[in-house]
Amino acid sequence: MNISDDQLLSIIRSHRTPFFLYDGDALCSHVSSILARLHPAVKLHYALKANGNVSIAALLRSLGCGAEIASSGELYTALKAGYKPEDIIFAGPGKTESELNETVETGIGCVNVESVRELRLLEKAAERSGACVRTAIRINPDADVSGATIKMGGIARPFGVDESQLDVFFAALRECRYIQFQGIQIYTGTQMLKAEDIIGSFENTVRLAGEISVKYSLPVNSINLGGGFGIPYFAHEQPLDMDRVLQHLNRLAAEAVQRMPGVRLIIESGRYLVAQSGMYVAKVLYTKTSKGEKFAVTDGGMNHYASAAFRGRRLRDNFPVKVFSAHNRQQGGDNPGQADQEEEVTVVGPLCTPEDCLVRKVKLPLIREADYIGIPNAGAYGLSYSPVDFLGHPAPAELLAAGGQVYVIREHGNRTDALRHQRLILPKTLQKI
Amino acid sequence: MNISDDQLLSIIRSHRTPFFLYDGDALCSHVSSILARLHPAVKLHYALKANGNVSIAALLRSLGCGAEIASSGELYTALKAGYKPEDIIFAGPGKTESELNETVETGIGCVNVESVRELRLLEKAAERSGACVRTAIRINPDADVSGATIKMGGIARPFGVDESQLDVFFAALRECRYIQFQGIQIYTGTQMLKAEDIIGSFENTVRLAGEISVKYSLPVNSINLGGGFGIPYFAHEQPLDMDRVLQHLNRLAAEAVQRMPGVRLIIESGRYLVAQSGMYVAKVLYTKTSKGEKFAVTDGGMNHYASAAFRGRRLRDNFPVKVFSAHNRQQGGDNPGQADQEEEVTVVGPLCTPEDCLVRKVKLPLIREADYIGIPNAGAYGLSYSPVDFLGHPAPAELLAAGGQVYVIREHGNRTDALRHQRLILPKTLQKI
Repeated sequence: MNISDDQLLSIIRSHRTPFFLYDGDALCSHVSSILARLHPAVKLHYALKANGNVSIAALLRSLGCGAEIASSGELYTALKAGYKPEDIIFAGPGKTESELNETVETGIGCVNVESVRELRLLEKAAERSGACVRTAIRINPDADVSGATIKMGGIARPFGVDESQLDVFFAALRECRYIQFQGIQIYTGTQMLKAEDIIGSFENTVRLAGEISVKYSLPVNSINLGGGFGIPYFAHEQPLDMDRVLQHLNRLAAEAVQRMPGVRLIIESGRYLVAQSGMYVAKVLYTKTSKGEKFAVTDGGMNHYASAAFRGRRLRDNFPVKVFSAHNRQQGGDNPGQADQEEEVTVVGPLCTPEDCLVRKVKLPLIREADYIGIPNAGAYGLSYSPVDFLGHPAPAELLAAGGQVYVIREHGNRTDALRHQRLILPKTLQKI
Repeated sequence: MNISDDQLLSIIRSHRTPFFLYDGDALCSHVSSILARLHPAVKLHYALKANGNVSIAALLRSLGCGAEIASSGELYTALKAGYKPEDIIFAGPGKTESELNETVETGIGCVNVESVRELRLLEKAAERSGACVRTAIRINPDADVSGATIKMGGIARPFGVDESQLDVFFAALRECRYIQFQGIQIYTGTQMLKAEDIIGSFENTVRLAGEISVKYSLPVNSINLGGGFGIPYFAHEQPLDMDRVLQHLNRLAAEAVQRMPGVRLIIESGRYLVAQSGMYVAKVLYTKTSKGEKFAVTDGGMNHYASAAFRGRRLRDNFPVKVFSAHNRQQGGDNPGQADQEEEVTVVGPLCTPEDCLVRKVKLPLIREADYIGIPNAGAYGLSYSPVDFLGHPAPAELLAAGGQVYVIREHGNRTDALRHQRLILPKTLQKI
C-alpha cells in the first residue's frame, strides 16, 4: 500500500467504517511488475480464494492474469470478472459431480484432478456433454522439498495423487476417451518466504513432469508449479526474494521449452499478489481500563478479519497496527518514535467473546474514542476467511482507491443478511399447548 | 438428539447435503424441562449468537424463553421470530450509536451497558426519542469465582465495568434522566461444566446486587446471572449437574424475592439449550490413501462447521463423529463394537487447505464413497461461527425434524451469494494501456 497516512485519514473520514481498503494503483504496479518479468512461456494465475471480490479479480484479469478457482461459486465470480473460460484452472480435493459437469460445460482451461475416482467422474461428465476436457493431475510428491510451514504436499495429505501411485493413475487415464491430458500440478505449501524452498519445489516439479512424459509416453503441455509465495506479516520476517525466484523460474522455462516445445509453466498466487495492497479499517467506539489494562473496542473484529484475531495462525504474534487519530493529529504505529505519546493497549472487536481480539497488549500511539485503527497486509484471506454473520453485525464494505478516486466495490451488509435463505417455520406439533 | 440412526439415515438420504439437522422434539422437551423447573421469579433468555436461525429462535420463544441479542441483526431476527420487545435484552461491548438509537425506538426490555461512555450515549439516544430506557450495568467482578476456561470476567476484560469503578458509574447514572435502572449483569465465563463454579458466580452476583442496592440507594429489579452452562463435547467430559444448579438458583430466587419483592433473576443460555439437538451432516465425495494414511473428503468442512475443524478451540481433540453408510449397512461411531470393520481415517472437507480437517486419525467404521458423516452436538456455534463464503461453496441447509416431519428452515446457498453487495468496477486509470 503506497497511500500516505494523510490520504488514508482523508479516505477513512469520508467513508463509513468498518471496511477493507485496497490500493489499486499499488496492486496494479506490483502485479504488472511480476508479469513483465515472466518468461513468455510462464503464465500467472490469480487464486480467487485469497480475495473473492469481483472487482479485484477483474483488475488482475485486465493485467494479464489467468484465474485459479476452487468451486462453482468462484467460477461464477471469475466469469463475472471477465476471465475467458480457457484462462481458468479448477483445483480442489472435493469437487462435486455437479461442479465437474459445470466446468465441462463451461469449457474451462484445465481441471486439476486429485484422484482416480475424480478422473473417472470427470470422464463421465465429459462423455455426457460430448466434449473433451483439458485435465492435469495434481501430484503429492514423495519428497518434502519445501520448507513450508503449512505443507500441502510431501507428507500424507488429502491433496493430489501420491507420486508412488502414478502407475495406477496413468493406467486409468489410458482408458479415458474424453480427457485431454495437459500435464501435472504440484503445490507444496503456502506462505513460503525462502526463495530456495520455492525453487527446490519448482525444480522437482519440472523434473517429474519430464519423467512422466517419458515413462508414460505422454506429451506434457503444462507444468503447474503451484505458488505459496509468502509475504512478511511480522517485523522479524524477511520478504521473499522474488527476483531470485523469477530468475530461476525463467531459466526453468527456457530449458523446458527447449526440451518440450510449446510447454507452458504455470504459477499460481493469491496472497502474494493482493495481501499487501489491502488494509482493514475499524473505528474505536469505546476505550476503557479494566484491572489496569487499557482496551479499545472497535466496530469490527474477528467477524471481519479473523486472521488478525489469531484465527488459523500458528504464530500468535500481533499483526502490526496503525492508529489514525480523529483529533487533528495523525500518527503511524510504524513510526512510534514520532508519536506524541504511547501506551500499551489491547484492541478488541465488538463481539461478546474473548476471541475477538485484534492485537493484544501492544505499544501504540494514544488511542481515543472516535479514532481509527488500520491493519495493513489485509488484502488476502481477510473478509472471505472470516465468520461474517457471527453475532449479526453488518458485513464491512470494500473500497478500491485508484487514480485519486475511491470506488465502493462492496457495499456494507445489512441486518437482514443473516436471514437470507432462512424460513420461519414453527411446526404445529412443537407449539406449546 | 433423540432420532434413531435408522431415522437419521432416512432423513439424510432424502435431503441434499451438507446440512445441519435439528431435533425439534428433543430441543422442545429439553428446554421445556428447564423452564418447568425454574422458580417463577427466574427468567431464561435465549442467546441468539449460539444459533441465529429464525425458526429455532421462534421455537424457543414459543416455549417461554426471552431473547438475548448482541447486534442490530440479532434484534431483527428476534423480532421476526416473534419476541416481544420487552422480552429482549441487548448486550455487547461494542454497541454503536445507531444500534442504541434502534433499541430505544424498539423499546426493548433491557440494555446492558458496559461503560460510562455507553451509558451517556444511551441517555442521549433516549433523550432524543423522549422515552425512558430500561438499563442494567454489566459488571466485571473483582473476584474470579468461576472455574471457566474461557473467562468473560474476573480478570482484565473489555466486558462490563470493573467492580472497583462502580462509584464512577453510579455517579454518572445519577445525572441521567432517561435511564430507568433495572439492575446488574455478571457473565463470568462460557462452557462451564462444574455446577459449583456456576453456583459460586450466581451467589456472588446476587450478593453484589444487594450491596449495590444498599450502597447506591437504588431498587434492583433484575439480577442477570449470565449463563455459561456447558455441554460435554468429549468422552472425558462429565455433563453439567443442571439439577444442582437449578436447585441453588431457585433457592437464591426465593431468598432474593423475600429481600427485594418483585425482583427478577435472569439466566442466559445459547449453547446449553441448542447444541445437543443439532448434527452436522456431510457426504463423503472421495476416499483416498496418501502415504499410508486414509482420508475421506466430504462436501462440507470448516466453511460450515469451523469448531469441528479445531477453530477457536483450546482443546484440539477430535469431536465424536458418526458414519452413515449408503451401502445398506448402518453403523454408529459411538458403538464401534457393533461395526463390521474399523479403520483409522482422517475426515477432511473440500477446501484446499490443511486447516479444513473435521477429525484427524480416528478409528471409525469403514467409510466408503457416498457414505455420510454426522457430527453431533452441532446445534450451537455451528454455521454462524464459520467462514461460510471461504472458497465459494454454497452454504449448507438447515433442517428441523419434528413430529415425524422434516422442515427446511434454511435453504442451501447458491453460487451467487458471495457476490451479494459487491460491485464490478474497473477504474479507467487502472486499465492496461
